[in-house]
Amino acid sequence: MELTNIKDLFREKEKYQGRKVTIGGWVRSNRDSKNFGFLVVNDGTFFEPLQIVYSSEMPGFAEAARIGVGAAVVATGTIVETPGAKQPIEMQAEEVLVEGASPADYPLQKKRHSFEYLRTISHLRPRTNTFQAVFRVRSLAAYAIHKFFQEREFVYVHTPLITGSDCEGAGEMFQVTTLDLENVPKTEEGKVDYSQDFFCKPTNLTVSGQLDAETYAFAFRNVYTFGPTFRAENSNTTRHAAEFWMIEPEMCFADLTDDMMLAESMLKYVIRYVLDNAPEEMAFFNQFVDKGLIERLEHVLTSEFGHVTYTEAIEILEKHNDEFEYKVHWGSDLQTEHERYLTEKEFKRPVFVTDYPKEIKAFYMKLNEDGKTVAAMDCLVPGIGEIIGGSQREDKLELLEQRMEELGLNKEDYEFYLDLRRYGSARHAGFGLGFERCVMYLTGMGNIRDVIPFPRTVKNCEL
Amino acid sequence: MELTNIKDLFREKEKYQGRKVTIGGWVRSNRDSKNFGFLVVNDGTFFEPLQIVYSSEMPGFAEAARIGVGAAVVATGTIVETPGAKQPIEMQAEEVLVEGASPADYPLQKKRHSFEYLRTISHLRPRTNTFQAVFRVRSLAAYAIHKFFQEREFVYVHTPLITGSDCEGAGEMFQVTTLDLENVPKTEEGKVDYSQDFFCKPTNLTVSGQLDAETYAFAFRNVYTFGPTFRAENSNTTRHAAEFWMIEPEMCFADLTDDMMLAESMLKYVIRYVLDNAPEEMAFFNQFVDKGLIERLEHVLTSEFGHVTYTEAIEILEKHNDEFEYKVHWGSDLQTEHERYLTEKEFKRPVFVTDYPKEIKAFYMKLNEDGKTVAAMDCLVPGIGEIIGGSQREDKLELLEQRMEELGLNKEDYEFYLDLRRYGSARHAGFGLGFERCVMYLTGMGNIRDVIPFPRTVKNCEL
Repeated sequence: MELTNIKDLFREKEKYQGRKVTIGGWVRSNRDSKNFGFLVVNDGTFFEPLQIVYSSEMPGFAEAARIGVGAAVVATGTIVETPGAKQPIEMQAEEVLVEGASPADYPLQKKRHSFEYLRTISHLRPRTNTFQAVFRVRSLAAYAIHKFFQEREFVYVHTPLITGSDCEGAGEMFQVTTLDLENVPKTEEGKVDYSQDFFCKPTNLTVSGQLDAETYAFAFRNVYTFGPTFRAENSNTTRHAAEFWMIEPEMCFADLTDDMMLAESMLKYVIRYVLDNAPEEMAFFNQFVDKGLIERLEHVLTSEFGHVTYTEAIEILEKHNDEFEYKVHWGSDLQTEHERYLTEKEFKRPVFVTDYPKEIKAFYMKLNEDGKTVAAMDCLVPGIGEIIGGSQREDKLELLEQRMEELGLNKEDYEFYLDLRRYGSARHAGFGLGFERCVMYLTGMGNIRDVIPFPRTVKNCEL
Repeated sequence: MELTNIKDLFREKEKYQGRKVTIGGWVRSNRDSKNFGFLVVNDGTFFEPLQIVYSSEMPGFAEAARIGVGAAVVATGTIVETPGAKQPIEMQAEEVLVEGASPADYPLQKKRHSFEYLRTISHLRPRTNTFQAVFRVRSLAAYAIHKFFQEREFVYVHTPLITGSDCEGAGEMFQVTTLDLENVPKTEEGKVDYSQDFFCKPTNLTVSGQLDAETYAFAFRNVYTFGPTFRAENSNTTRHAAEFWMIEPEMCFADLTDDMMLAESMLKYVIRYVLDNAPEEMAFFNQFVDKGLIERLEHVLTSEFGHVTYTEAIEILEKHNDEFEYKVHWGSDLQTEHERYLTEKEFKRPVFVTDYPKEIKAFYMKLNEDGKTVAAMDCLVPGIGEIIGGSQREDKLELLEQRMEELGLNKEDYEFYLDLRRYGSARHAGFGLGFERCVMYLTGMGNIRDVIPFPRTVKNCEL
């Protein structure tokens, strides 16, 4: 069908003034008086709906007056500017055809619904203002991330989802199997007979594509992943989902400073892109979801991010231990309350905390010369806390092997990873950005369930 | 580190002529004579390597002469044009630093390796010419697809990977669980006790995001997915993988004709983008992997795709049944040999086959007025056969319910899907493009294992 996007009608008002167009969309409201009716229609291309005026002289006026909220319509008419009205333009209809009716039991009648209720109808909630805004911003942010890396010649790598090894040893994993759970085949010793499983061994869903991405960085120098990752953590919070998307860039011939520069440019790029390409949605969030959101994001764009070592950060935080639920001391991991204190109170802008004790970070992080800390960085942002975690990677074979031994990791599982240090090793660094956390940061939405189309959390896997 | 990309040196020769730069990359070969040495270095940003000339007057000449294949180096020197030589430019080195050595047992010494062997070292194979070309084209094609849809205001939707329902009834699925397979908990009736599983019910890995994507098309009109999908099929062929990526656009207020127009524009867009942005890689494939590749792709760009109904196609094919392993008749599914006959011999260009018998297509496809066929389309391309499969979807509640009953589908599992036909239904259509098949088509590579970084196939889940 030849339809005009409502977005184009708003963005190019002058061009369409006085012109006849056809639009297709869904009715948000319909009110009629004796001689006129007003349909408010959203077509999904634009946050603002189009008002369609139909008169009693239009053929089918009586049917039009009966169109219910939620119905799909195809409307043809002339676009006119309406100076002084709430909406800058409207359509004067010549014809309104009902494509699909919507009976009175439509669950999204025009009134406010709680986010909790809308979660129970996740297949319909994108039709509401809030979720239309959330999921358009999610789409734009995803594209901005691709655009950022591709413009910088990073190669996009699809790392595998099903994995034969728990590489980071990080967190609980989901097992993937084709064995019949009602009747699990066993070996003579009474163990699960994995020779009958699809891959002839136990397999899990990945928790990170980093180690795989590193192998590709040693071929392309700069690479990134953008794909789903999984955690089978039994944590029922507003920040945890069992399935979420991650972005993991990895750069060869790069150190921790390069890594932080990349993270800062990427965040600024995504913020700028979303503010530029979804101004109506962002104004909506700023007004109804998180007052001060736009000011906060604009401030980030013009700030240089702060830098502080973990050791300095602990010194700062120890002075305020009486304000914290969890008291800090050198060696303790930072909790969200500490992260937010640093970025919101102390620095009042995003800040990188660097050089953490090796004991609280992963085995692959590069040991600093002090022998105690590693070249890690976390990026903390106001309102969220940690949004990015990264590090320079250990590129010395002996030091990596030594650290793996200390932690009791099985070297045989990591031969591919050690090969990167055997053959043409190079300093390299990367980070991980949780995409949902990024969308929460951009929109001010407070619950991860409300930024994922069909969220998967403990005990919840609907649709 | 401040490094210059080798890509920029080649693409902007004039700018760099006579300038001193530093590059970082990996050694492909090193040969030295008494007074000179020649390092060939690839930095991953460009298909062609850079030749670095070092003289015996350079400090560290002796060390440079000993650098092994595969070593990582950082080299500084002056870029000079070399008219008449095989390479248009070279670097005259002032300094060559070894970032990471590469001992003599490096598995990729300079000689040809078979694809079979390279599959056993999937973490190193992107360092070879062929796989560097494949995976750069894969990255560019992925970006081209995002760019195509975003420029047309399609919203990118992340549909879930873990799913509680086998919605299409399509193919074998992987089960996802946190139950202990060594000791599966049972109910009093002796069944698996799923109340103890993570989601409190059986869950699988998705085979398609289409039904979820449809729900979002009813909010945004035009949407697309681009994410992993899974099949636990026990088929060990060159075209099947257990984990692969799919693109699934879905449009409301669109019929089968709109669907085919979208598919044709998308394919042409991706081909154009890859030819424009990876000319060296494409020339390599054309020369060493699939002679005639570029001509075939250029021909697609300038052809209008053919159109033929299934019924007409059967009439054509029946005349050649003696040439086929599988004989066709009205009602039989088309095999690859038939698809290739149509696109390669009969049409000599890509062709859409439409209006298949309902019995061989999925339940959600729109019934045509003849009551026998559905508004489906498959796009066939030379050298591959089917690359895209799509359809207009059934938008009438009664017809959809009737078809589900005929097929014995459980309506309760599809209430969300039926809601789309209850509340504001609209004609709509979409298709699926298997991304790996698209990359094979673009590169001429013949085995799906060679276009996936770490392929997952039956009995194989390495790294």
